[in-house]
Amino acid sequence: MSLADSVLNGDRLALARLLTRVENDTIEGREALDVLFPHTGKAHLIGVTGAPGTGKSTLVNQIALSFRKLGQRVAIVAIDPSSPFTGGAVLGDRVRMRDLAGDTGVFIRSMASRGSLGGLAQATAGLVQVFDSAGFEIILIETVGAGQSEVDIARLAHTTLVVEAPGLGDEIQAIKAGILEIADILVINKADRPGVESTERALKNMLEMAHPVPKIFQHHGQTLTETLPDNPSPNASLWFPLIQRTVATDGAGLPQLIESIQRHAAHLRQSGEWLTRERARLEAEFDLFIQQELVARFRAGLPEAKLAQIMESIQNRKISPREAVSVLLNGGVS
Amino acid sequence: MSLADSVLNGDRLALARLLTRVENDTIEGREALDVLFPHTGKAHLIGVTGAPGTGKSTLVNQIALSFRKLGQRVAIVAIDPSSPFTGGAVLGDRVRMRDLAGDTGVFIRSMASRGSLGGLAQATAGLVQVFDSAGFEIILIETVGAGQSEVDIARLAHTTLVVEAPGLGDEIQAIKAGILEIADILVINKADRPGVESTERALKNMLEMAHPVPKIFQHHGQTLTETLPDNPSPNASLWFPLIQRTVATDGAGLPQLIESIQRHAAHLRQSGEWLTRERARLEAEFDLFIQQELVARFRAGLPEAKLAQIMESIQNRKISPREAVSVLLNGGVS
Repeated sequence: MSLADSVLNGDRLALARLLTRVENDTIEGREALDVLFPHTGKAHLIGVTGAPGTGKSTLVNQIALSFRKLGQRVAIVAIDPSSPFTGGAVLGDRVRMRDLAGDTGVFIRSMASRGSLGGLAQATAGLVQVFDSAGFEIILIETVGAGQSEVDIARLAHTTLVVEAPGLGDEIQAIKAGILEIADILVINKADRPGVESTERALKNMLEMAHPVPKIFQHHGQTLTETLPDNPSPNASLWFPLIQRTVATDGAGLPQLIESIQRHAAHLRQSGEWLTRERARLEAEFDLFIQQELVARFRAGLPEAKLAQIMESIQNRKISPREAVSVLLNGGVS
Repeated sequence: MSLADSVLNGDRLALARLLTRVENDTIEGREALDVLFPHTGKAHLIGVTGAPGTGKSTLVNQIALSFRKLGQRVAIVAIDPSSPFTGGAVLGDRVRMRDLAGDTGVFIRSMASRGSLGGLAQATAGLVQVFDSAGFEIILIETVGAGQSEVDIARLAHTTLVVEAPGLGDEIQAIKAGILEIADILVINKADRPGVESTERALKNMLEMAHPVPKIFQHHGQTLTETLPDNPSPNASLWFPLIQRTVATDGAGLPQLIESIQRHAAHLRQSGEWLTRERARLEAEFDLFIQQELVARFRAGLPEAKLAQIMESIQNRKISPREAVSVLLNGGVS
């Protein structure tokens, strides 16, 4: 039986093995993904992102436990792109396993961030597809830090949670501005700490700057089409991000958070947004493969000596990189 | 006279116009870059990166003034990728202009971060080429925040400064770990603040983790080749990052910092690293153009209906994106 078939049959060891092959982008991994692809598209992908210190890992743990209580199978993909040289995955399997140990309805995968950012998002997409095909209904994708990596990985998710905490300092907020834009639900964790009010106020202000449409809609009762800006985000126009307080260490606020996550999923399905996101994601994947394959084929057909000659002309500033590409692709003499 | 020729003749208005065209990636901008390319390769590109709150902009200002006093022409490219929706460039031209106003040996360009990250690095590379060809000897590239964007942009620079400040909190350090790896010089700005000792200690520890080779070399007197790890960074093996304290607001530490920057440039030239970095940069640029052009040509030759049909098969999970690409490029029947 192939590894892919074993995964479809619920074999956990096969699952672990296949995840490694997919993460390493091996040929077996790629072929298995092709086999599994028809079985994907069922899971609810939930991205959880936020800076270190927000208690995000504990929150992910609690979310997983909550969905388990509802009888759903949960996979966690934890990514740590903050430290390329330590190998990442600091808050790894062991700490989490205390709560989730022995539960075969949960599978946790920590992934160190090595290599390029694009590669990381691609590898994550692969892991998610494996879990999806293996019947995990909830897939939590946890990312550390704040930056483009989170935005890229959030594009994978149906629902994106951005986790904040009181007292992390105003200066940090500036970094987070870009991250807020991707949030479907903003979680203020550690909400028993002082400063929670001002954090919530600051987040509300930032949200209103980032998502002006629903605000106008609510305030003036105009119809949606009248208030749409030139280039609205399809999400912003229909779902105004929620702010939710939690204390992950004792589970406070978790039931409300789970309800909001489920409400968001229902909203996505009813509005057709679920399908739209699914399509955009598959199209992006298709585009990436096209690009990789075209470059690989071009490279394979280009004699080593010819490439070296062109690079020398560029390095001697005789021809610009763009001109060199044009000469090369038009088959002209260089 | 073409815009490119005017720029080569020192026309500041033409320079400003061309920078806009290059930033917007227009055809005129691209063609002008081809014309200017043979005149590039002279400037010392200095990346300055660090989190908000480190006083990085003031430091960039002071570095610019210091190089001006040495008679060198200085360009500043300031990038703010932290806030895609506010349009960025908060600490823009006006604040800086107080110190540098009226000096034609200085040119400052603020760039808002819109669109993709790859696009941002590409646009920055274009601006840098324009300044380089226009005879600016020092080009400071300032980026806000901490993340992959900084790493990408740092690849452009010959010398990368990472700016820290005391008292920004331990939790932030985790984010910065990845950033430290790209630092040639670590600047502890606001060094008159309490906590400077512990910040320096923490940075030293992180540096030793990130750059083990020179440490072993120093401690045991072994030859370099004996202690090289399997996959050494060419920089780490020859230059151990310096830590430098500054107080940008009153200029303290600036002469030492400038000296270190110049020492790093001399090191790069003597070791051949300058040329190596230059080549890697041009090769990456060439690769990017190849990729963009191949995809553009492929798209142009693909009938709309055919693409729609393939996307439908993918969306219905009949064929995986990777299989679809394979079918398409092998000219098979889908």
